[in-house]
Amino acid sequence: MRICILGGDGYLGWPTAMHFSARGHEVMVVDNMAKRGWEEEVGATPLEPVPTLKERARRWRQKKFQHIDTVIGNIADDGQLMQDICRDFRPEAIIHYGEQPSAPYSMLNQENAVYTQCNNVIGTLNVMFAMREHCPQAHLVKLGTMGEYGTPNIDIEEGWLEVTHNGRKDRVLYPKKPHSLYHLSKVHDSHNLEFASRMWDFRVTDLNQGVVYGIDTDEIGNDPELCTSFHYDDIFGTVLNRFVVQAAIGMPLTVYGSGRQIRGYLNIRDTLRCIELAVENPAGRGEFRVFNQFTEQFSIMELAERVRESASEQGLKVEIQHLRNPRVEQEDHYYHAKHSGLPGLGLEPHLLSNGVIGHMLTKAMDGAAKVNEASILPKVDWKHGWQQPVADEPAGIVCLQPARA
Amino acid sequence: MRICILGGDGYLGWPTAMHFSARGHEVMVVDNMAKRGWEEEVGATPLEPVPTLKERARRWRQKKFQHIDTVIGNIADDGQLMQDICRDFRPEAIIHYGEQPSAPYSMLNQENAVYTQCNNVIGTLNVMFAMREHCPQAHLVKLGTMGEYGTPNIDIEEGWLEVTHNGRKDRVLYPKKPHSLYHLSKVHDSHNLEFASRMWDFRVTDLNQGVVYGIDTDEIGNDPELCTSFHYDDIFGTVLNRFVVQAAIGMPLTVYGSGRQIRGYLNIRDTLRCIELAVENPAGRGEFRVFNQFTEQFSIMELAERVRESASEQGLKVEIQHLRNPRVEQEDHYYHAKHSGLPGLGLEPHLLSNGVIGHMLTKAMDGAAKVNEASILPKVDWKHGWQQPVADEPAGIVCLQPARA
Repeated sequence: MRICILGGDGYLGWPTAMHFSARGHEVMVVDNMAKRGWEEEVGATPLEPVPTLKERARRWRQKKFQHIDTVIGNIADDGQLMQDICRDFRPEAIIHYGEQPSAPYSMLNQENAVYTQCNNVIGTLNVMFAMREHCPQAHLVKLGTMGEYGTPNIDIEEGWLEVTHNGRKDRVLYPKKPHSLYHLSKVHDSHNLEFASRMWDFRVTDLNQGVVYGIDTDEIGNDPELCTSFHYDDIFGTVLNRFVVQAAIGMPLTVYGSGRQIRGYLNIRDTLRCIELAVENPAGRGEFRVFNQFTEQFSIMELAERVRESASEQGLKVEIQHLRNPRVEQEDHYYHAKHSGLPGLGLEPHLLSNGVIGHMLTKAMDGAAKVNEASILPKVDWKHGWQQPVADEPAGIVCLQPARA
Repeated sequence: MRICILGGDGYLGWPTAMHFSARGHEVMVVDNMAKRGWEEEVGATPLEPVPTLKERARRWRQKKFQHIDTVIGNIADDGQLMQDICRDFRPEAIIHYGEQPSAPYSMLNQENAVYTQCNNVIGTLNVMFAMREHCPQAHLVKLGTMGEYGTPNIDIEEGWLEVTHNGRKDRVLYPKKPHSLYHLSKVHDSHNLEFASRMWDFRVTDLNQGVVYGIDTDEIGNDPELCTSFHYDDIFGTVLNRFVVQAAIGMPLTVYGSGRQIRGYLNIRDTLRCIELAVENPAGRGEFRVFNQFTEQFSIMELAERVRESASEQGLKVEIQHLRNPRVEQEDHYYHAKHSGLPGLGLEPHLLSNGVIGHMLTKAMDGAAKVNEASILPKVDWKHGWQQPVADEPAGIVCLQPARA
């Protein structure tokens, strides 16, 4: 199958490209390297140095005799790029990771908020118009996030909700109340894509993904020349990845607020399998299909405890520290999210075990010497934006102070 | 009160400015004149020539000894403009009409779709960040549209919906499924503004307005030097205004499809009163308040019949012609939309009477000689975008042909 992966230089994009290439598909990746720029901007460095996209594609070809086509370009600013790709490559599936992926980055200031929504929403609009023109039968697999839902007081369904109101029924888009302007950009995308499926008979799968963790996949196979961009900082690092690195360097695990916030999580290996299942079982023409893509729910404190437990098996002593929550979110809330669609297609989850955390810890300890500790503490406050770290204080002390016990 | 009106050069913005000025408020209008450019682009001309914003403000000052401050600038492209306005003028209320207001314009092609969503969403984000910085207690009155809801099979509530699901309850944002990328831009705005009220304790009133009709208000008072930009073309003309002009020039009323589509409508005079009521009764801190701003529901065919009836009282013979519907929308659908919030604050509607239509017809007949008939027939198809009118055919014949009977 001809598969086009947008955002193919990223944490999930590159492993996805190898995953499909290894299975014999014709893979093109598109990226504008913007994320590497955002990382520089906020001072985030990946745990291991990440070779360029072309270097990794070259390494992959040497090792597996499989070609991954790389296109360097901007799907949002360049309205013609996706037109050219859809006309010339004629993708049968488009996997769309090509967006600014960080909530704190979007909440940093006005400029970043505007950039995030413009970049994400316009990129997706350009994909829609290119598909309409050149490949209206292609299947668009769009990465959304569980964060779009927020924390409603009712069960979270998979994208749609059956409603009875004043004696009448309808099936409506699940109402969303997310916690950041980044998450809102994905809500906007979802609305635009539901429209495209309704107007133009598109096949769309919208994947509301939980928080991803993990460093390794079968195709990376511990080869540093094929590695993905693993982040542990406050802006681009997801919470479990961050905790593991904190444990590895002997820094307290920083829990925002009480840590009773519950979210859905999944292993990066399951991300790849979910995408594969979605591509193998496309949505129908005119169907806007939504899956909640996660395998387990945890509270932040449960994750912290799990990391502490695994770390102690490796002889590491780990502290847990509560910081004033820089985000505006409910800390005590109902959370029950359905996620039966992907298991129904055959997903067999890799659950979070001490072994999984242990493997991550080992990798993190290998890279511990180069970890930038100052990049880990939160610097973006949801009410006020970027809070300058106090320059004269020791590294790691920023103005968001530990909360009172 | 210090009131800032965004989009103050427009069909509703300018009459709103005079309405508040006449009541002794300190009014600033902001506009970038972009709409005059879009009109040139699609070949739309207003029924009467519209003096510039500054000319109208000057005329108003001469006549009423009231000053309306005019600021020419772009709230979307210039991220600093609203910062400066909020810092220096310190508005107590911001009335936000400053967006691209046409569904067909947004569906014309990729460029217009991208422009519409970017312009509308980013403009509103810039307003939000400026308010956060300089006037977080100000009341933002944002113009949305009834079209955001689409045509659900359940009653349309005012912005929020009480849901019971699997035995649990929540109050959720009313789920929306609109019919154009323009309407979607307003859905995105609504989500961003609900977020702002939740994160930053903003006072927000989101007005989901029906289709507005009418030429005159008390402050215009038939003075051509104070007139507003009344449009009758397929891109910027709302349906009743278009029908009235068609009747006045002896052209058949062009109904899209069956004409059984039902929508909410209101008189331009009621728009002004609704805005006034919203401003006089601001939303609370942290409240995202939504009103459905219309006074009556009609099907398109009912409107056409009403225009035919009023026209015949003036001795005009009017035909009704069904065109293939260029839009993708349900023509037979349930429609029951609540609109009790504004009457609850004191709105006494000007309902659609033969007298109202008759007054509009008289004005339209005054301008009939200059009407650009070719601009009235639909040229934007929802599935394919702009359809080039057939150049060699007589004026008014375009490729969207009358439907079979």
